[in-house]
Amino acid sequence: MPTEVRPASPDQARLLRELLDAGLLISSGVPGVYGHGEAFERVREGLDELLSREARERGAIKLRFPPVLPRHQLESTGYLGNFPHLAGSIFSFEGTEAQAAEQAERAASHEDWSEFQSQTEVTLMPAACYPVYPAIAARGRLAPGGVFVDAGGSWVFRHEPSLDPARRQIFHQHELVRIGEPAAVLEWRAEWAQRGLELLRSFGLDAHLDTANDPFFGRRGRMLAANQRAADLKLELLVPIAGPEPTACASFNHHLEHFGQTFGIELADGTTAHTACLGFGHERIVLALLRTHGLDPEAWPAALRSRLWDRLA
Amino acid sequence: MPTEVRPASPDQARLLRELLDAGLLISSGVPGVYGHGEAFERVREGLDELLSREARERGAIKLRFPPVLPRHQLESTGYLGNFPHLAGSIFSFEGTEAQAAEQAERAASHEDWSEFQSQTEVTLMPAACYPVYPAIAARGRLAPGGVFVDAGGSWVFRHEPSLDPARRQIFHQHELVRIGEPAAVLEWRAEWAQRGLELLRSFGLDAHLDTANDPFFGRRGRMLAANQRAADLKLELLVPIAGPEPTACASFNHHLEHFGQTFGIELADGTTAHTACLGFGHERIVLALLRTHGLDPEAWPAALRSRLWDRLA
Repeated sequence: MPTEVRPASPDQARLLRELLDAGLLISSGVPGVYGHGEAFERVREGLDELLSREARERGAIKLRFPPVLPRHQLESTGYLGNFPHLAGSIFSFEGTEAQAAEQAERAASHEDWSEFQSQTEVTLMPAACYPVYPAIAARGRLAPGGVFVDAGGSWVFRHEPSLDPARRQIFHQHELVRIGEPAAVLEWRAEWAQRGLELLRSFGLDAHLDTANDPFFGRRGRMLAANQRAADLKLELLVPIAGPEPTACASFNHHLEHFGQTFGIELADGTTAHTACLGFGHERIVLALLRTHGLDPEAWPAALRSRLWDRLA
Repeated sequence: MPTEVRPASPDQARLLRELLDAGLLISSGVPGVYGHGEAFERVREGLDELLSREARERGAIKLRFPPVLPRHQLESTGYLGNFPHLAGSIFSFEGTEAQAAEQAERAASHEDWSEFQSQTEVTLMPAACYPVYPAIAARGRLAPGGVFVDAGGSWVFRHEPSLDPARRQIFHQHELVRIGEPAAVLEWRAEWAQRGLELLRSFGLDAHLDTANDPFFGRRGRMLAANQRAADLKLELLVPIAGPEPTACASFNHHLEHFGQTFGIELADGTTAHTACLGFGHERIVLALLRTHGLDPEAWPAALRSRLWDRLA
């Protein structure tokens, strides 16, 4: 049974139509998968640069990762237990010439060719911070104070087809990751929660910070979500875009020892590092800007344009 | 039977080790899947900007697409007939809570969980020009002279695990696409073949242009390859990186009416448009630069640094 496509509210449907009509987004025919027109992408790139500059000025090192993750790594993190409904795995063909011909024939008539596909060693990237942990673990023990990584605006995949333009199957998540001593990590998260809030407000967005939980799967998931809220492990920056509720445009996860333990990240004294991450959703922030200041960035307030638009001029 | 990992030549193995040791690339544990260290990514971004500027100055409009393609579209192009061994399809979970628990348990012990995955409506992007054709077709008939699109440095996937650092499973392909009258498209390809050659030579690379063919699958593929060569439909810009043969760092495909017909792209007079595309392999060009000028971009010739490195200064 194929996953149901979530419907859009009238307001969300109107926004999507406006974005497509203005050429800001390009329909692919699949809900939640869009191309970007020139203006949309220019604002997104401006945002990407601004976030990376903010991080660099505060000591972040920059690493970049592709939109696929080793399957073995996904298996090690417990992601499939928590979010089986969101994960995407990658399959490919390993058969004979006769099977290739049969597969091509079925595909050409849009019939089922899945039986010819077998699972590969990679999956789609579920969250842009995932490849950071083993990369840092491989460097050996951390220096005192730990490390701050800018993993940039990476493509991540979530299998949740929706007609809400703010809910994509594939989008840019700009991940900042802090790995270090427990107190340093907590302090970093508090500092960046405030900085993120001020940043979105400085764009003229009506942002507020709130406690949140991840969309864990099933009955067991409801308990995990309640625990996550009770322990204050997830914060979100919410901004009205379209629809009845404001939309999470950034989220902060505190993982305690989870990733430090999974990947063996050691502090200077040999104990396990704590980690936290901050993910800005590029496309959601661009949507919030377009909804707040209008669909034509040329007509945005000059101060905002100079930060997110005028780089190419 | 899982796809065999192609071995590396001694020279390729040495280069890969040097790149990893210098932190230019980051191992993921899967052959052909790497993260980028700060210096590698800075050069790659410099190249991305330079190519987009070259295209913009010659009238290209900029569109950007995610690393996934609607499955229906892949099926329509004949890709699975020509390159079944390279395509990646995306699967996900659509089962019950009990199945999710069983899947998670198997995954946690790195056992096979593929039976719980079913094919989705999307695949990985096989070539960065693919989403351009339906996007342009949707605009209606072309204006006289056609259109020139810069689809940017997009992630594309090819399932060909290899220990040669120049052969990736996932990499940035910077696609420039020309859609228009047959003569205009041919002229554009000739002009850009020359421009691409001069560009790589201006980076100090020992580039040359040659006729080539795609890696078509199987026995039928050998005939397709011969036909493609005979009709002069594919050109490549070759540069020595590592190993016995020079590596294709850019390729030019002339598709004649193929994509115009498949997606119904009409010229101003209602006839079918011709198309051609030019793909620069970002990572291969960066590797060629590192091999030619040394692994430390700070020590590169000043003129080259100012074009690809000094933007952040």
